[in-house]
Amino acid sequence: MATDLQRLIQDLRDFAEIRDWEQFHSPKNLASALSVEAAELLEHFQWLTEAQSRSLGPEKRAEVGTEIADVFLYLLQLADKLGIDLIDAARSKMLVNAQKYPADKTHGL
Amino acid sequence: MATDLQRLIQDLRDFAEIRDWEQFHSPKNLASALSVEAAELLEHFQWLTEAQSRSLGPEKRAEVGTEIADVFLYLLQLADKLGIDLIDAARSKMLVNAQKYPADKTHGL
Amino acid sequence: MATDLQRLIQDLRDFAEIRDWEQFHSPKNLASALSVEAAELLEHFQWLTEAQSRSLGPEKRAEVGTEIADVFLYLLQLADKLGIDLIDAARSKMLVNAQKYPADKTHGL
Amino acid sequence: MATDLQRLIQDLRDFAEIRDWEQFHSPKNLASALSVEAAELLEHFQWLTEAQSRSLGPEKRAEVGTEIADVFLYLLQLADKLGIDLIDAARSKMLVNAQKYPADKTHGL
Repeated sequence: MATDLQRLIQDLRDFAEIRDWEQFHSPKNLASALSVEAAELLEHFQWLTEAQSRSLGPEKRAEVGTEIADVFLYLLQLADKLGIDLIDAARSKMLVNAQKYPADKTHGL
Repeated sequence: MATDLQRLIQDLRDFAEIRDWEQFHSPKNLASALSVEAAELLEHFQWLTEAQSRSLGPEKRAEVGTEIADVFLYLLQLADKLGIDLIDAARSKMLVNAQKYPADKTHGL
Repeated sequence: MATDLQRLIQDLRDFAEIRDWEQFHSPKNLASALSVEAAELLEHFQWLTEAQSRSLGPEKRAEVGTEIADVFLYLLQLADKLGIDLIDAARSKMLVNAQKYPADKTHGL
Repeated sequence: MATDLQRLIQDLRDFAEIRDWEQFHSPKNLASALSVEAAELLEHFQWLTEAQSRSLGPEKRAEVGTEIADVFLYLLQLADKLGIDLIDAARSKMLVNAQKYPADKTHGL
């Protein structure tokens, strides 16, 4: 049974294929597009204080949600193009982080 | 039954809580960190040709996988902090994109 | 006699002061804004081939020039806020680069 | 008489030419590298409060100065490659900004 992620990945493949956009979707270009979308996400927060960023109104929150989706869609496409499983990669990195930042030595740091 | 994503999100919450890092994880800061990780990902591709980026060797591919994981982990934390469901947001954005870029009018463009 | 750069820096100070924007111009925020503008600049190139990026038409070139200006204006403000002289910093870094990348050992690499 | 900026630009041309790096310096690639360096600059500030970013110690300030130089060097090269005069572009954009943000209507906003 396909998971939500697997269905998203397949739909993104179909979306690009039907538009003949695969030619533009080199990993180099997808990584650029991902970085640009991450900056558009950051733009919403650049002049806010941290406290303001913790209490967004519903309208701003919806806008930010759209930018988060843009980042996610490019991340999925880039990972798919490189044959990388997002969940596996995330799990591996969390193990690395747990060793790199032992809880008892990095408390509040 | 919790999905892989839900388990990842919970584990990220626990990871931050046990280290008392929630104080640093304002959406403003998480959006910055996400953007920085996206650039570290892009760095691997900046001097490659597009063709080279399509045929990474196994070592480079593993490094890129680690950067992809970093982006994903911050994206999950930012979305969680804002109460945004990544899958729902992605689905909504794909519907918008389908209307914005009709297949018959954007073929190969 | 003030140089072009010194005059620009002074005008940027006046621009911010008269609008009472200094409160927003923490180095943290200026670094975010700089990063966002750099991404807006990159956005113009993300789907172009390298060859296309080397032969921009006049309209695209003008748009890119505006983004380059945005990056420069934030860079000037951030450097000014931190008391860093851009020309001196650039000169120092070029010396470092010359040692790090000896011409005879990095030819074409 | 050549200005500081003109000398920097010429030295950057020589630096790239003697290493045969011009082949890598497409505007697309330079814009990527600029964006990556801007993120490395941002990285120094991502977990700092705004107040902390306003009072960097000398060591951190020196590190930030090096990142600022990296951004500046790529900006100079990209502008040079596109035949754009940084000072002129900055002046033009400041005029646009002055009209877009009238001082009496944007005070403290």
